[in-house]
Amino acid sequence: MRSVHISLGSRSYDILIGSAVAVDEVLPTTGLGRGVAVIVTNTTIAALHLPRIRSALGHAFARVEVVELPDGEEFKTWGSLNQILTALLGWGCDRNTVLFALGGGVVGDVTGFAAATYMRGIPFVQLPTTLLAQVDSSVGGKTAINHPLGKNMIGAFYQPRVVVCDLACLDTLPLRELQAGIGEVIKYGPVADMSFFQWLEGSMEALLAKDREVLADVVQRCCEIKAAVVSSDERESGMRAILNFGHTFGHAIEAGMGYGVWLHGEAVAAGMVMAAELSRRGGLVDEVFVRRLTALIQRAGLPTKGPILDASDNAARYLELMRIDKKSEGGEIRFVLIDSPGKAVLRPVPDALVREVIDVCCE
Amino acid sequence: MRSVHISLGSRSYDILIGSAVAVDEVLPTTGLGRGVAVIVTNTTIAALHLPRIRSALGHAFARVEVVELPDGEEFKTWGSLNQILTALLGWGCDRNTVLFALGGGVVGDVTGFAAATYMRGIPFVQLPTTLLAQVDSSVGGKTAINHPLGKNMIGAFYQPRVVVCDLACLDTLPLRELQAGIGEVIKYGPVADMSFFQWLEGSMEALLAKDREVLADVVQRCCEIKAAVVSSDERESGMRAILNFGHTFGHAIEAGMGYGVWLHGEAVAAGMVMAAELSRRGGLVDEVFVRRLTALIQRAGLPTKGPILDASDNAARYLELMRIDKKSEGGEIRFVLIDSPGKAVLRPVPDALVREVIDVCCE
Repeated sequence: MRSVHISLGSRSYDILIGSAVAVDEVLPTTGLGRGVAVIVTNTTIAALHLPRIRSALGHAFARVEVVELPDGEEFKTWGSLNQILTALLGWGCDRNTVLFALGGGVVGDVTGFAAATYMRGIPFVQLPTTLLAQVDSSVGGKTAINHPLGKNMIGAFYQPRVVVCDLACLDTLPLRELQAGIGEVIKYGPVADMSFFQWLEGSMEALLAKDREVLADVVQRCCEIKAAVVSSDERESGMRAILNFGHTFGHAIEAGMGYGVWLHGEAVAAGMVMAAELSRRGGLVDEVFVRRLTALIQRAGLPTKGPILDASDNAARYLELMRIDKKSEGGEIRFVLIDSPGKAVLRPVPDALVREVIDVCCE
Repeated sequence: MRSVHISLGSRSYDILIGSAVAVDEVLPTTGLGRGVAVIVTNTTIAALHLPRIRSALGHAFARVEVVELPDGEEFKTWGSLNQILTALLGWGCDRNTVLFALGGGVVGDVTGFAAATYMRGIPFVQLPTTLLAQVDSSVGGKTAINHPLGKNMIGAFYQPRVVVCDLACLDTLPLRELQAGIGEVIKYGPVADMSFFQWLEGSMEALLAKDREVLADVVQRCCEIKAAVVSSDERESGMRAILNFGHTFGHAIEAGMGYGVWLHGEAVAAGMVMAAELSRRGGLVDEVFVRRLTALIQRAGLPTKGPILDASDNAARYLELMRIDKKSEGGEIRFVLIDSPGKAVLRPVPDALVREVIDVCCE
């Protein structure tokens, strides 16, 4: 089994990467495994993976309970959070109860926030079942729910005790979700490691075919990059924001289309092309880089153009949606731009330039 | 102006104690004071203190907004939290927005939790207007809302940037609330400092008469004790729990009677007598100590007996309510007991002994 360490003092933890991992066997190293385990999952994942995980946790815990949420980004709400908290209270769960998030980003974010806030904090473990969650959302301690007025607006920085990336879970992952995960994978190249990007260019077909070794390499390298960034800036006061490359445009796409219409990774993919084009027009990177990024995104089967959100003034609608982004300050939107391939910067951009890019990059 | 420092590394802050404090003048030392200030208060406090605070903050911030919650423990809910979060999103507040909690424990707890979770954390300032909030709830970073199944069950440890205890706010505090605050003041003696307890025995009349110097001494000493405890155990993994002396019984009283029927400090007062009696029957303290504590609580005008929560089996009802306490572990209730006057310990007690105490101490 491979492992990547996230170094955060008393909140440090490991990401374990393997195939058909026996969760009960990795728990002893974390000090967890007594009392009550509560698995939070969704109805889709429950049908595929719950029996195996439940049985494994039954070896380590005196009692195993399950909360099944409905499946979908539209359920990343206070209602789902409250469903978990109410169940925990109903079962008399105390501060030693361990939450297990079995699912993708939505399950991980909601479960992590429940762990952060139940009795002011209980331990939790991430068991990500999608590529996107394995390379991004389950690592780094960002937890949240959506608010009708904005995505991920209510949440906490709260670290898991361990993350177990089981590549066997990806066997059942639908192609569209695999592709969405590849969106977040591609992101790590332009912001941190162009040799990884180059390797990806030579491995895209194997990745789309779910080659187990290529998947292992991808998950490990993405987690290594994320670990380095998160360890240096846990609460996103600076450098960590570079991991949001493509996300400012992407969040506008998700919100503007209605959550769940575009998958997060699809919106980020189109958002990366827009942010790259913005970097080019800002004089940072050349057209060769933008074309190279666009080509890889296209080979992954991901969108390279943003949708039209408002036929009368599309750019105004994007700008309106982006101003509520968590990276904005005093109404000024700060974009993650590519300074040079492999290096990102965070900075505001004049509205006029952003409008140009939106006009060119949407259809 | 007096000050007490809470030492928590990068989360350290000061508690400032004075009369008619100009809030805008103390802000510069905290690095706060630009962009948007949002004052969260309740309708009662707004009528008394809002104009002065709003005007002061107008000198330091470009924009000052206000959220008015309804007054009362029964509004320490998700509904009030969401009222704050929705207002912040509606005003386009970003991560530099500063929340000011102007009020007692309910306002402080809800506002602190809103600050902890809005965009995963924004700065906040406590402006406690009750004695209870000045000596206890506004210091130490415990934030929470109630859940229908339990008090303070959803929350976070999240520290304010500064706490300003303005003794002038206590001029308008109703006697019953002053007395409830004295309940929490008395607590600090048995758990940490019997010389303070002795001083209180000689100062109770002046305290009830709101003597400004006595109030200043009381707030300072209680904050000093709390600062020492919180600095050594921020997240209540051990020693910090001693500050919950009287609270296990007290929470059962509040929940059993319906939140708001007994004030928190009243429930804690009766709860302290019960916990002291439990300590005596457990062989820790003598009857002289229990009588001395009971006498001081009585002189403060506070209840020394718990209410009957269930005429058919009162002890069973208390036990049922106490098992859901955050200090319980595996269904075993851990009580804060007085080991010897001035020193507390946390330990489980056999149900039979707890039943005896409930039978003797309720009427």
